[in-house]
Amino acid sequence: MPSAEPLAAATREALLHTSTASISTELVLRGLPNTFMTGVAPLRPGVRMVGEAFTLRYLPARADMDERRIDFDNRTNVQRLAVEAVGPGQVLVIDARRDLEAASLGHILATRIQARGAAGIVTDGALRDSPAIAELDMPTFSGGPHALISTLRHHPIDMGLPIACGGVLVVPGDIVVGDGEGVIVIPRSHVDEVARAALRREQLEAFITEKIATGASIVGIYPPTQDVMDEFEAAEAQAPRSINDQDWT
Amino acid sequence: MPSAEPLAAATREALLHTSTASISTELVLRGLPNTFMTGVAPLRPGVRMVGEAFTLRYLPARADMDERRIDFDNRTNVQRLAVEAVGPGQVLVIDARRDLEAASLGHILATRIQARGAAGIVTDGALRDSPAIAELDMPTFSGGPHALISTLRHHPIDMGLPIACGGVLVVPGDIVVGDGEGVIVIPRSHVDEVARAALRREQLEAFITEKIATGASIVGIYPPTQDVMDEFEAAEAQAPRSINDQDWT
Amino acid sequence: MPSAEPLAAATREALLHTSTASISTELVLRGLPNTFMTGVAPLRPGVRMVGEAFTLRYLPARADMDERRIDFDNRTNVQRLAVEAVGPGQVLVIDARRDLEAASLGHILATRIQARGAAGIVTDGALRDSPAIAELDMPTFSGGPHALISTLRHHPIDMGLPIACGGVLVVPGDIVVGDGEGVIVIPRSHVDEVARAALRREQLEAFITEKIATGASIVGIYPPTQDVMDEFEAAEAQAPRSINDQDWT
Amino acid sequence: MPSAEPLAAATREALLHTSTASISTELVLRGLPNTFMTGVAPLRPGVRMVGEAFTLRYLPARADMDERRIDFDNRTNVQRLAVEAVGPGQVLVIDARRDLEAASLGHILATRIQARGAAGIVTDGALRDSPAIAELDMPTFSGGPHALISTLRHHPIDMGLPIACGGVLVVPGDIVVGDGEGVIVIPRSHVDEVARAALRREQLEAFITEKIATGASIVGIYPPTQDVMDEFEAAEAQAPRSINDQDWT
Amino acid sequence: MPSAEPLAAATREALLHTSTASISTELVLRGLPNTFMTGVAPLRPGVRMVGEAFTLRYLPARADMDERRIDFDNRTNVQRLAVEAVGPGQVLVIDARRDLEAASLGHILATRIQARGAAGIVTDGALRDSPAIAELDMPTFSGGPHALISTLRHHPIDMGLPIACGGVLVVPGDIVVGDGEGVIVIPRSHVDEVARAALRREQLEAFITEKIATGASIVGIYPPTQDVMDEFEAAEAQAPRSINDQDWT
Amino acid sequence: MPSAEPLAAATREALLHTSTASISTELVLRGLPNTFMTGVAPLRPGVRMVGEAFTLRYLPARADMDERRIDFDNRTNVQRLAVEAVGPGQVLVIDARRDLEAASLGHILATRIQARGAAGIVTDGALRDSPAIAELDMPTFSGGPHALISTLRHHPIDMGLPIACGGVLVVPGDIVVGDGEGVIVIPRSHVDEVARAALRREQLEAFITEKIATGASIVGIYPPTQDVMDEFEAAEAQAPRSINDQDWT
Repeated sequence: MPSAEPLAAATREALLHTSTASISTELVLRGLPNTFMTGVAPLRPGVRMVGEAFTLRYLPARADMDERRIDFDNRTNVQRLAVEAVGPGQVLVIDARRDLEAASLGHILATRIQARGAAGIVTDGALRDSPAIAELDMPTFSGGPHALISTLRHHPIDMGLPIACGGVLVVPGDIVVGDGEGVIVIPRSHVDEVARAALRREQLEAFITEKIATGASIVGIYPPTQDVMDEFEAAEAQAPRSINDQDWT
Repeated sequence: MPSAEPLAAATREALLHTSTASISTELVLRGLPNTFMTGVAPLRPGVRMVGEAFTLRYLPARADMDERRIDFDNRTNVQRLAVEAVGPGQVLVIDARRDLEAASLGHILATRIQARGAAGIVTDGALRDSPAIAELDMPTFSGGPHALISTLRHHPIDMGLPIACGGVLVVPGDIVVGDGEGVIVIPRSHVDEVARAALRREQLEAFITEKIATGASIVGIYPPTQDVMDEFEAAEAQAPRSINDQDWT
Repeated sequence: MPSAEPLAAATREALLHTSTASISTELVLRGLPNTFMTGVAPLRPGVRMVGEAFTLRYLPARADMDERRIDFDNRTNVQRLAVEAVGPGQVLVIDARRDLEAASLGHILATRIQARGAAGIVTDGALRDSPAIAELDMPTFSGGPHALISTLRHHPIDMGLPIACGGVLVVPGDIVVGDGEGVIVIPRSHVDEVARAALRREQLEAFITEKIATGASIVGIYPPTQDVMDEFEAAEAQAPRSINDQDWT
Repeated sequence: MPSAEPLAAATREALLHTSTASISTELVLRGLPNTFMTGVAPLRPGVRMVGEAFTLRYLPARADMDERRIDFDNRTNVQRLAVEAVGPGQVLVIDARRDLEAASLGHILATRIQARGAAGIVTDGALRDSPAIAELDMPTFSGGPHALISTLRHHPIDMGLPIACGGVLVVPGDIVVGDGEGVIVIPRSHVDEVARAALRREQLEAFITEKIATGASIVGIYPPTQDVMDEFEAAEAQAPRSINDQDWT
Repeated sequence: MPSAEPLAAATREALLHTSTASISTELVLRGLPNTFMTGVAPLRPGVRMVGEAFTLRYLPARADMDERRIDFDNRTNVQRLAVEAVGPGQVLVIDARRDLEAASLGHILATRIQARGAAGIVTDGALRDSPAIAELDMPTFSGGPHALISTLRHHPIDMGLPIACGGVLVVPGDIVVGDGEGVIVIPRSHVDEVARAALRREQLEAFITEKIATGASIVGIYPPTQDVMDEFEAAEAQAPRSINDQDWT
Repeated sequence: MPSAEPLAAATREALLHTSTASISTELVLRGLPNTFMTGVAPLRPGVRMVGEAFTLRYLPARADMDERRIDFDNRTNVQRLAVEAVGPGQVLVIDARRDLEAASLGHILATRIQARGAAGIVTDGALRDSPAIAELDMPTFSGGPHALISTLRHHPIDMGLPIACGGVLVVPGDIVVGDGEGVIVIPRSHVDEVARAALRREQLEAFITEKIATGASIVGIYPPTQDVMDEFEAAEAQAPRSINDQDWT
């Protein structure tokens, strides 16, 4: 399920310096309002994530589909196949039907996913060994913690299909971005344009915020009038705001 | 997605005369506890349903996946393809992620599904035109009513895959049974054995209920002792209880 | 757990002709606002229930507490002991923690409870064989239907203790009243007074409703002025309103 | 709060013969997707409702705002003022914040509202004396039943303001339509056009349903091709389908 | 909407050194149990808030009420008017109907609110740019984070009216206090008395806690007997406990 | 309610160095899947807890059961009796029916419980003064914060009985373990064996994690083949992994 072409470096760089809030607004402006996951929170709020969606779908467990409940055959279990298939720059996104009464993944598999170079893990179910997962360098996002192994409630059914996660549609190859607020999904077809526009919006909003923070009214500034836009463009032309000037959280 | 072999007539007949409660118990005895859907109710409680699962999966709507929002191209829209593909003896089972804020199907499509000879419709989402659907001869089961067309919240993504519905795993070809209590799913591999055992249980429980209703204690009768079982077997041998003797609701 | 003294005939008669709404108001006036169960509905809305609470408490199932999962030993299983202990005029009230993903009781046990002369069954969990239970003469109230036997999620732990049901405290011996609206609990110490007052309120409200239905404003009538009260008292003195004059639903 | 001009007779007639499902679709086509209430059901599914919204807003009760808890001063209590202000052709719509743990209105006030000629009552809270309210001629819709008087959880704060009900915005003067499916809100500015279009859609869908019910595929018929539209127009021109031809539920 | 008279300095000082828990108890003692918001948490648990409620009410969005979805006219949009109207010492309290699937406010407006000298922001909806908002000096409280702009789900309808927030009634001018536990609302008429009593309770509880922490039983101490009260009064008379002696969290 | 025999020192030591995730897996392997509480989180994620369950049961408050609402008689109030009865090595576990709209315990009682040497507090309700409780040395776990005193919604009914907490059955004397993930319950009969096995699993998983973290595939390692097990056993035989070698969170 590798994407035909990797994400452009400039696009990745822009997304690493843009909040999910700015990305959301740019997606709304392009007719895509339902892209930010509800109820999916970061285990390490300070670590940002950008990657390509690698999808894994769980269904409710049923005994005739799950021969053995604890041990797993790495050659046939779809969860295990997914863990050994997710690659550099990809985010494993799990559709766990928002079921928080068992885990959907644990620490050892998360460690393997990190070792494979993945960009992150997102699940709308729970994670087990969540304190240990929170110490990985790789960013992870979940619906909560639960110690129970996944197989008691979940049957991994397939990977590489479109799924729902946190109330949002995720297509393999979509770009998934995470920050301290949560997780947003960008359709691959829109990503370069949205990344560029969101970064620009981020910079414009930083410019506006500076004015507001020092006492300006929002009237005539937010939303910006043409005058404000011209002033912003001039300031940028003179001294381009580095994407590192800002304090990204 | 037609099953290789039709459901045996005796099995179908048994299931039509067995409650979902008795079927559930027989499935539990075979290690399958999670088969009865939660939150999925009959629009016509008095009409029983038996059929083979024909699955349809919805995901959250996203504009880049849904070109037009109201009109549908019957040659490409997966919902429409499913409606024209479901056949005699099949039950259309929709995974709508338990989202009750828009419909997952309406009256005209339900009418077409009935005309195609389908055995019923099950969704864990909502139905629109639900009063009209409740007047079809074909049994339907849903999570509730909602007037809003499905496309505002749902994108039909594929058919013929395993899905979740009402918290239960449904595999295409599974046998789906509905009564006044709700909907249960029987793995195809278990259906003949479970149908036979459930009908037997139903008859035994009717035998026991008669004793209880006329004043017997449950002690020694429910669960039945060997004596009660022998008495039941003898009664059955002498005058087999027709499956039509009972008042099925 | 039989109560020391049976419910007075006049009290029972009054409660059989009073809505849970009127009883609720009289309890509120005596400082008892939290007595009507939330989320507990009648299977037969037209059948009224009055009885003494016989309580049964369930806890989440755990394997070391439940030796066998399907069969039950009637001499040790607390649910079965309760079924054989509940007596004439009593209502079996089950605390099932509002868990609707398995049944808390089924048809055969309900039939036995009816045969023992019980006044009804109330559970904030689910009932299985619910279509059959709905055809019993005895009134039943539940949080919904579910086909799965209780033992998969519930462990019957004790009977005769105070419990919570539908968000309301129920003490053994409390009087439990049900109608088309739902179930209310009256502390035994208050029952005679509340029954008398609620019946009086019911009659007064019928008197007021007649005026309102024929065009009177609520102003000066509801709440009633002293004039209206005097008129009501006079009418009652002249021609006492039989408790059967009203259309009880 | 009476509207400047009454609803046109033709518009009212059209709405009385159109399902909320058809109205919803016409509103979606005009950019208004969020108009059908979620979780608000009819007490008498067979009785249709059309009227102008008269709004009443409740907030959580707080003792300093509620001098007396049981009795009400009809000259100052906003709930009582609303009951005596709602007039012929109006629907009292209550914003009860979807709180189902106390009533938002009871039988006597509902009777008075009916006597005043109101077209109906809608609340996203609960109704008390719900069995008696279900026997009124006037249609009512609620989130469920509860016996507890409203004042324990609700403080009526004002009337005639825009409110939320069942997740939908309701502006005084909006047209509110109810049927067996539930309740929909039509902005006053759109009502004549939407009523006409929805009735036309209803008739077209009846025409299509007849074809589907007798065996036609949906392909080329639903959505209708130009040929089907022409055929429908010709049939209507020849023998106009009376709005009473259909079986409205 | 400025209050006639500012909060007394001693009252403000007392509230800044009193926990919402102590305030809640004093309100309960005066017949006001429902004043602490449920489901509304601090973004910066360590920063305490005291201010006067400035209310803003949102309703579900509907297209005919919202001309443009992204840009806002600062002269007509009620949200923007509120941001430019809230003043020093006031807390902007938003009724967002506990809807957590879109934001109710973002970083730039929060920055402006802080610049205007406001005492804080409280919403029972979500905040966007929540990591940036968490870094403001001004305390903020919300139901959670969400990146989606408010206009997709919310229509700001009015300001300065009583509202519901977190299940609690908030009247403009009420005093709103926040700490690491959450947010409580004090009716203006009660604030001086409650602040004084709550601070006294806080000091008494600190006195009691010291005894308990060093090994005393709660018997005879909590609740305090007259002896304990006398001892506390004597200690206070001799060496008044400064309100800064305690470790306020 | 002290247990006949104290927890073996080796068992306690093992549990203090084992995650709830590993304990959960060992319980699943012994047929006990439902032992980890859902929705119960640590106030201090870094502090581990091991103790014996001392149970306290709350029911919904009802005025006739609660003579006085604010003050408590330490000689009769069950909550207060429990606080003075819980002893060294015990964990007070409260069944608050997952009700989060009032507290179930506050700071002074928590301080007393710590002073009595208890091992911790667990409630599926809320805690008040939660910021202060979070600073105690003793670990606490709850469903959330709420400032309202418990008596407005809870009536403490008994102690020392089996209860439900966070969806899990808790029997007095069960061993309760808490870490950064949450709380798990181990039946007393299983505790020595489970502790030993869980610690072994923890060590094995640390051994496996090291391999995975340095680049090994999960294939052939997780689940471990016999070769991996032999290697682990050999490494342990040569240089036993101290239980303090690992970074416990």
